[in-house]
Amino acid sequence: MELTEAQAAEIEAQRAHLAETRRPTVAALEERLFTPVPVLDHGFVRVIDYMGDDAAVVQAARVSYGRGTRRVSEDAGLIRYLMRHRHSTPFEMCEIKLHVKLPIFVARQWIRHRTANVNEYSARYSVLDREFYIPAREHLAAQSSTNRQGRGEVLRGEEAAWVLDTLRADASRCHDHYQAMLNEGADGEKTDPSRDGLARELARMNLTLNTYTQWYWKIDLHNLLHFLSLRADAHAQYEIQAYADAIMAMVDAWVPLTAAAFRDYRLGAVTLSAPMLAVLRRMLAGERVGQAESGLSKREWAEFEAAVGGGRA
Amino acid sequence: MELTEAQAAEIEAQRAHLAETRRPTVAALEERLFTPVPVLDHGFVRVIDYMGDDAAVVQAARVSYGRGTRRVSEDAGLIRYLMRHRHSTPFEMCEIKLHVKLPIFVARQWIRHRTANVNEYSARYSVLDREFYIPAREHLAAQSSTNRQGRGEVLRGEEAAWVLDTLRADASRCHDHYQAMLNEGADGEKTDPSRDGLARELARMNLTLNTYTQWYWKIDLHNLLHFLSLRADAHAQYEIQAYADAIMAMVDAWVPLTAAAFRDYRLGAVTLSAPMLAVLRRMLAGERVGQAESGLSKREWAEFEAAVGGGRA
Amino acid sequence: MELTEAQAAEIEAQRAHLAETRRPTVAALEERLFTPVPVLDHGFVRVIDYMGDDAAVVQAARVSYGRGTRRVSEDAGLIRYLMRHRHSTPFEMCEIKLHVKLPIFVARQWIRHRTANVNEYSARYSVLDREFYIPAREHLAAQSSTNRQGRGEVLRGEEAAWVLDTLRADASRCHDHYQAMLNEGADGEKTDPSRDGLARELARMNLTLNTYTQWYWKIDLHNLLHFLSLRADAHAQYEIQAYADAIMAMVDAWVPLTAAAFRDYRLGAVTLSAPMLAVLRRMLAGERVGQAESGLSKREWAEFEAAVGGGRA
Amino acid sequence: MELTEAQAAEIEAQRAHLAETRRPTVAALEERLFTPVPVLDHGFVRVIDYMGDDAAVVQAARVSYGRGTRRVSEDAGLIRYLMRHRHSTPFEMCEIKLHVKLPIFVARQWIRHRTANVNEYSARYSVLDREFYIPAREHLAAQSSTNRQGRGEVLRGEEAAWVLDTLRADASRCHDHYQAMLNEGADGEKTDPSRDGLARELARMNLTLNTYTQWYWKIDLHNLLHFLSLRADAHAQYEIQAYADAIMAMVDAWVPLTAAAFRDYRLGAVTLSAPMLAVLRRMLAGERVGQAESGLSKREWAEFEAAVGGGRA
Repeated sequence: MELTEAQAAEIEAQRAHLAETRRPTVAALEERLFTPVPVLDHGFVRVIDYMGDDAAVVQAARVSYGRGTRRVSEDAGLIRYLMRHRHSTPFEMCEIKLHVKLPIFVARQWIRHRTANVNEYSARYSVLDREFYIPAREHLAAQSSTNRQGRGEVLRGEEAAWVLDTLRADASRCHDHYQAMLNEGADGEKTDPSRDGLARELARMNLTLNTYTQWYWKIDLHNLLHFLSLRADAHAQYEIQAYADAIMAMVDAWVPLTAAAFRDYRLGAVTLSAPMLAVLRRMLAGERVGQAESGLSKREWAEFEAAVGGGRA
Repeated sequence: MELTEAQAAEIEAQRAHLAETRRPTVAALEERLFTPVPVLDHGFVRVIDYMGDDAAVVQAARVSYGRGTRRVSEDAGLIRYLMRHRHSTPFEMCEIKLHVKLPIFVARQWIRHRTANVNEYSARYSVLDREFYIPAREHLAAQSSTNRQGRGEVLRGEEAAWVLDTLRADASRCHDHYQAMLNEGADGEKTDPSRDGLARELARMNLTLNTYTQWYWKIDLHNLLHFLSLRADAHAQYEIQAYADAIMAMVDAWVPLTAAAFRDYRLGAVTLSAPMLAVLRRMLAGERVGQAESGLSKREWAEFEAAVGGGRA
Repeated sequence: MELTEAQAAEIEAQRAHLAETRRPTVAALEERLFTPVPVLDHGFVRVIDYMGDDAAVVQAARVSYGRGTRRVSEDAGLIRYLMRHRHSTPFEMCEIKLHVKLPIFVARQWIRHRTANVNEYSARYSVLDREFYIPAREHLAAQSSTNRQGRGEVLRGEEAAWVLDTLRADASRCHDHYQAMLNEGADGEKTDPSRDGLARELARMNLTLNTYTQWYWKIDLHNLLHFLSLRADAHAQYEIQAYADAIMAMVDAWVPLTAAAFRDYRLGAVTLSAPMLAVLRRMLAGERVGQAESGLSKREWAEFEAAVGGGRA
Repeated sequence: MELTEAQAAEIEAQRAHLAETRRPTVAALEERLFTPVPVLDHGFVRVIDYMGDDAAVVQAARVSYGRGTRRVSEDAGLIRYLMRHRHSTPFEMCEIKLHVKLPIFVARQWIRHRTANVNEYSARYSVLDREFYIPAREHLAAQSSTNRQGRGEVLRGEEAAWVLDTLRADASRCHDHYQAMLNEGADGEKTDPSRDGLARELARMNLTLNTYTQWYWKIDLHNLLHFLSLRADAHAQYEIQAYADAIMAMVDAWVPLTAAAFRDYRLGAVTLSAPMLAVLRRMLAGERVGQAESGLSKREWAEFEAAVGGGRA
């Protein structure tokens, strides 16, 4: 990701502004405000604004529980309790606003999270830049042979080279033609005065799905953690995981107690079904149980082993 | 509304805290932060936190419209354009968090606005204070004879006195019995050691609907304006209007350009149906049109006259 | 719950209507359509309409997975897979509409589930019936001494009798005064012609929280299961559990495969945190671990023991 | 749009199934169930399921208004009243489920309507068909010179021919390369055994935005009408308008009273701002007012003239 001079100057100006506030502030997040964190080859995530902190979660929980919480020893314990028991509303009291630049096919997965506010760059209204996502060599994977929704081995040699060349050539050609159809220069004037130029809302259909778009995305902490639990997961597509990992680091800086509880009780947790629990109890009672005796299907048995054995299904 | 010494001290402490931030701040709202604005006899609204300002609305709109908006002359004009054309997503980029103390029957109307985050004082967990809403004399109205959902004349004399006495006596007696059932003193010890005391989650059912509750309520600016368009309206029940009016004053301080546009294009606007428009065009062409010639029902005609005549239906 | 003659006749008429449809139908739910299932002393739940069945869940999943699912062996397996892996969107493709009569304090918990559609009886507009929830003797519990949000032993003897008498007397007196304030007979005429009568929207504030209200409530299957996972849980307040249990029986009739998967993977499942998993692995490796060696807090240890030991925390 | 034999047979089978139900049915919509309505060159919309009818709207409103509505004369009047006064919750009591095939760039606009349930064909999981949207000649418009978000004149002659050829060639080439990267035949076997084949979730990024996708989309009637008010509007992009028009015809068949009220009070209605109303009142009082005297900006004046003059802004 390279910033233009204009962009770098704008970010510098945003960061230079300092004001006094009575609101809660988080020094570690203030430090990161506005600065883009690079993701993939041309993408980024940056924090534009935030509301609340770990103490705001506690404050909201204490309104709910009123006098009753006088005895709850301390904030970290209360946050861990809320996370463990899925008391989600206190986490909704914090909010964060991000500016994200991302390939369109990633944006299509991301937007499925409906409980968020979005303002996306409009290609009906404006012209999309000539930037495409081309995977790094090490992420150019074959289709998994065992998981219809996953990746297998990394492609090699000629096949990899051909794929990269093709992705690059097709995206470039499509964008060249997009601009030619628009017939519109950077100055807004017609490139070729003899032609009318196709409407932007139509020309955009010629672009490939790895073209970058960008948006402002605002979400509360509860729904953000839900997003992260799905998208920072090992089963998520690598390209969206890369964004989720960058955001998780922001959450660590923003609400460290909540982030730690989230790692223990959500990211690192495992849910055992009623049939799995029955098997587990037999094992803890000293019985040796294999898949055949477990009553679990092969697939569930594999998930069970992964869960209690240390890996993840 | 009277604050206890402990509450006043807590608010003082919240207000005393000052920190530096790189985020946008709004001086006029900082000034009001944490201070309760009295509503009804024991209620209040106070701002606990906020995110964004008028410029954040503009910023989000400009992301959407990209290069295209370079030419849009200035912020106020853009905000007015967005409001007029119901482009709602840029207004979702601002967020506010309020602490509200309100009677339960008002809370029941309020909660129907689903796109908000709420943490309410839990009467399963804690004991509700002995505070009830008793209307001021001038709000003690008779049932409207023309509108099944409205108020008519103010009650007078003996009837008014009897109603107020009864509301007060019933609420008091119910709360006395609530406390007696709980059998729990302010120190958490049993008042009468020979009794067990009823569970809080059960005892609360003896309270009347004018008992005060409280909550933290967080909402984005677009949905807040929708709330205000319904609840600051003359058809809303007076008791929730009182809260809406207090919040509208906060919005004026927070996002003055948005608030002004909202008054022009939403609060003060009128929607004319296709049949009403047809009548209006005949009138503008010089025809004299009465209800009989209008094709409108009596009810719609009255609404039409109120709309173009200056009152509100 | 007793139905008036008029209500019984209306239900009979609804049930008598039969029509042909090309839509999926579920015989076991058609059988129950419109018939009220009694809950608590005067409440009920009844199914008014539904959309979709187990096959609709499968159909939606197969659209998502396209050709890829040709090989998935059968519907039950696919539904169990979706439930286990929290693939929630296919369950959103089914919808149910219920008519519920319930005490106001239960309605206040219920409404916190925001992703649903609600039309409630309006006490601004109409007069609430003289019906209150009075708990059965066996549900008249003391406050739990260990759980601030729970019930302990059942009250006995004089205390129980006094509580029941008081609940009944206070609710009755409040409703009597409500009607006197309204000054409105069943015929809509003034009871006492010399008085104006208080507006309905004001008079209602004199009612107690155990007064019954009613609403139409429509929700998709995914969000209904989320509601049931919280409200059919042993930690939910008994009064809302009673409704959740009645609805769970309807779900069993409506989407039996989904209901069975829900019991195995949600209702009967347990989530183990990362620290709990670490302890479990030590135990499965043969180590004897007590709370002291576990690294878990006492509270978490108790939850862990309940989870793997067979009870519920 | 052409159906494969397999698709036509599946639709025939769906339509052949008839069952008895106690639920409300709508004959005019039953008639259309499952049958695809062609939209654009390869797209379609078809109704898969529905819940409720005009009477369900009335029923829900009557629950809210209780005894009070006994006097409301008839259903159409009540529905018109609800629509005029934006009482939206009764319309939420109806639900419809559609199967839609649409170009990706249209899907990206559509998905911004968040209050709906969606299951989309997954290109992580399955292979997208070789079908692209190529506009008909008469929809190949130039960029509007007055509206940055609109279309102007239709392109002609060589420019039009070149654009169509380019759109077709680029989409075809990109899809050819997509299939070559996948290296996967219709039988799921490798086309070229010497290569691994790129993972589906990566290969899809080479597709152009006019490639067709499909989804199941389920939404309540209130939110559907909101969608239609924006997307059946003359300012919407033609391609999504085409879908909205097809859906509007389904709404006409499904809930004719609601559809008629929607046309009068929403589609054909105009909202006048407070400043516009002030001008209107002067005009109705006989004053001649032009833009100069109106206090309105040129833009608002044009909108005002369009509104009361008969066109649309």
